[in-house]
Amino acid sequence: VPLILLGLGNVGRALLSRIRAGRAHHRKRYGLEFAIEAVSDSSGAVRLGNRPPANDELDAILRHKEAGRSLAEAREFEGPIELEELVRQLCRPGCIVVDCTASCETVWILREALARGGSIVLANKKPLTQEQEIYAELTAWPGRCRWETTVASNLPVISVLNRIVATGDEVHRIMGTVSGTLGFVMFGLQEGRNFSELVREAFESGATEPDPREDLGGMDVARKALILARGLGWQLELSNVQVQGLIPSSCREISVDTFLGSAESLDEQYQNLVEAALARGATLRYVVTIEDASCRVGVEEVALQSPLGRLKGNDNLVQIHSSIFSPTPLILQGRGSGVEATASGILSDILELVLASARSSLVRSRI
Amino acid sequence: VPLILLGLGNVGRALLSRIRAGRAHHRKRYGLEFAIEAVSDSSGAVRLGNRPPANDELDAILRHKEAGRSLAEAREFEGPIELEELVRQLCRPGCIVVDCTASCETVWILREALARGGSIVLANKKPLTQEQEIYAELTAWPGRCRWETTVASNLPVISVLNRIVATGDEVHRIMGTVSGTLGFVMFGLQEGRNFSELVREAFESGATEPDPREDLGGMDVARKALILARGLGWQLELSNVQVQGLIPSSCREISVDTFLGSAESLDEQYQNLVEAALARGATLRYVVTIEDASCRVGVEEVALQSPLGRLKGNDNLVQIHSSIFSPTPLILQGRGSGVEATASGILSDILELVLASARSSLVRSRI
Repeated sequence: VPLILLGLGNVGRALLSRIRAGRAHHRKRYGLEFAIEAVSDSSGAVRLGNRPPANDELDAILRHKEAGRSLAEAREFEGPIELEELVRQLCRPGCIVVDCTASCETVWILREALARGGSIVLANKKPLTQEQEIYAELTAWPGRCRWETTVASNLPVISVLNRIVATGDEVHRIMGTVSGTLGFVMFGLQEGRNFSELVREAFESGATEPDPREDLGGMDVARKALILARGLGWQLELSNVQVQGLIPSSCREISVDTFLGSAESLDEQYQNLVEAALARGATLRYVVTIEDASCRVGVEEVALQSPLGRLKGNDNLVQIHSSIFSPTPLILQGRGSGVEATASGILSDILELVLASARSSLVRSRI
Repeated sequence: VPLILLGLGNVGRALLSRIRAGRAHHRKRYGLEFAIEAVSDSSGAVRLGNRPPANDELDAILRHKEAGRSLAEAREFEGPIELEELVRQLCRPGCIVVDCTASCETVWILREALARGGSIVLANKKPLTQEQEIYAELTAWPGRCRWETTVASNLPVISVLNRIVATGDEVHRIMGTVSGTLGFVMFGLQEGRNFSELVREAFESGATEPDPREDLGGMDVARKALILARGLGWQLELSNVQVQGLIPSSCREISVDTFLGSAESLDEQYQNLVEAALARGATLRYVVTIEDASCRVGVEEVALQSPLGRLKGNDNLVQIHSSIFSPTPLILQGRGSGVEATASGILSDILELVLASARSSLVRSRI
C-alpha cells in the first residue's frame, strides 16, 4: 500500500513510528505492507525508495526531524522532489495521501490525489473547514476519504455519525465536548485551580497549539463543530458557527508571552463563574451544540450529575440524539486528544480504506 | 446493489420497510439503488424481479408475512426457488446476503456467498458463535462482511472495536451490558419491582426471545460475549464462556407458561440481593467481562456512581480499555435493542460495504 505523508510534526512522526512498529501485525493479520513513498514538511518533500520496509531511510528522516531540522536542510537524503512532481508521479489508484499538517495549503494536493484515483486521510481540519464546496469535493467518495481524527482525535465520532447519517436516521441534536485541552482547563477550574495556571500548564505540556489563544479563542472547537454539522448534510461556513471564546478579543493583540503573563487577570472572573455554577449543582464545560439549524461553541453550565458534568480530566464526550437514538442519545466518551491517540486514529482510517477496498483483489487472489 | 434477504421475522420485515422508505435518500445522496432479488423464510425462498424498486412485489410479501403466513403458502408469488438454486443463480461479486434469521442453518449459504465473491451482513449471532473456524472463515474478508447488530443492536460496538484492534492497539479489558432486555430487568429490580413481573412485561412486549429463558439463562449474552472476544483475536468456543444465568437450571424443564407462572418464587431472592447491594451504594447489572484470557457473563454488583450503575431503562453500555484508551476507557452508550434500531444498524452495515467498494466504480464513472 503506497502512502504519501504530508506533515512531519508530532503527529506525523508518531504515525511513522506506529506504522513501523505495526509492520509484523499488519503483515500477519491482513497480509499487507505499507510503502511510504514520500514525506513532506513545510520546507519541501523527499521521495523514498518504493520498497517496504525501507526502515533505514525512515529512521534517518525521523532522527533528522527530531533534531529540529527541516527536510530541505537534509543533504543526505536522495530524492528531494517538488510537490507538483510528487503528485504527478505518485498519486494513482490505491495510493493514500495522509495529511498531518495544520495548513490550508494542502487542499490542491488532496484534490489532485482524488482526481487521480487515490484516497486521502485527513488529521488536518483546515481543508474541511474552508468553503462548503471544498468540503463536498473532498468527502464525495465515501470509499476514498477518512477524517476521523479531525474531531476528538481517536474517539470515533465521525465514523459513528456517518453510520447514523447514511441510513437516513434523522439527527436532531449533537452536543458534546471535543477538545481535550479545553476539557483539561474546564475540569481544572471545577477543581478550584486558577485559569492562568491551567493555561500555562496546558501550554507547557504541549497540549495547546503553539499559540494557546487558538484553543482558548474557540476557533479550534469551531472548526470541529463545522465538520460535524457538515457531516449531517448541513451547508454552512465557518463564519456561520457562533463562537464564544474563553478569552476577550483584546488578548489577541499581544505576544504569547505577554498573554500568558497577563492571564491572571481572568482568574477571578472564572473563579466566580465556577463557584456560582457549583452552588447550583452545576459546572462549566466548553461545549459544541448543533441543533435547530444552529451550530455554536462556547462555555455552558451543565448539571454535575449529567454525562458532560461528570467528565474528568481531558476526556471528551459526544451525545447524538436521533430518531433511532431516542429518547436517550448515543454517547461516545473517552480520551479525545494526544499525539499517540491521534496517530492511532489515523492508522485506523488508513486500514479501513485499505481493507474495504481489498474486496476485489482478495477475491481474485483466492478464487 | 443486489440484495438477498434471509429471514422475514420482525427484523427482516423492518429492514425491507426501511429500504423502501430510504430509496429517495439513497438515490439522491449516494446514487444507488437496492434491488432485492430474493427473500426467504423458514419455509422457503422466493425470487423477485431484478428491477428496482419492485415495490409491488415487496409490498405483497410484507402483507403476506404480516398476516402470519409463510412464503411456501404463497401461491400468488412467481418464482419460488430452492435455496441451492438461489445461491447458484444469484450469489456473485457485488451481491450482499443479509442474514436476519436466528438459525444456524444459514452458514452454508453465507460461505457460498463469500466463495462466489459476494458480501454478507449478519444480524444473526448463530453463525459467528459456532466453531472458531467458521467464525474465522466468515469474517476473513474485512471488506465483505459486517456483523454490527449481533452485539447491542445498532450501538456500533463491533465497528469501534474493529477500528481499535486493526491498528494493533492492545485491548486489556471489555466490560459492559449488551442486552436491552436484561438491562430492563436489572434496572426494574433496582427500582423495587418484582422479578416475575419484569419478566412477564418483557415477554409480553416482545422484547424477549419466544422462550424468555433464552435471555434469562444468559446464552444470548454469552453469544455476544463470544463474538466480542473473537473480535479481539481470541480463539475460543461458546463452551469456554462462563455463563451465570438469572434463573436456576430447573426452570428449563417446564413449559414457558409454567415458568412464567412460577417465576414469583424467585422474587424474594432478587429483592434481597438488590436491597443488600443498594445498602452498599451499589446495584446489580447483567455484565459481560472479557479480560485476562477469561470471558464471562453474569450478574455483577456495580457502584451506583459508576457508568454501568448509572444506566437506566434498556440502554446498553460498553467500556473498552486499551493501551491508547487509558487510564479511562472508551465508552459507548445508548439504546442497544429494538426492531427498528436493529434494522437501521443492518442498513448501516449494508451501506458501509457498498460505499467502501464503490471506490473503483465511482472513479471510473468520473474520470
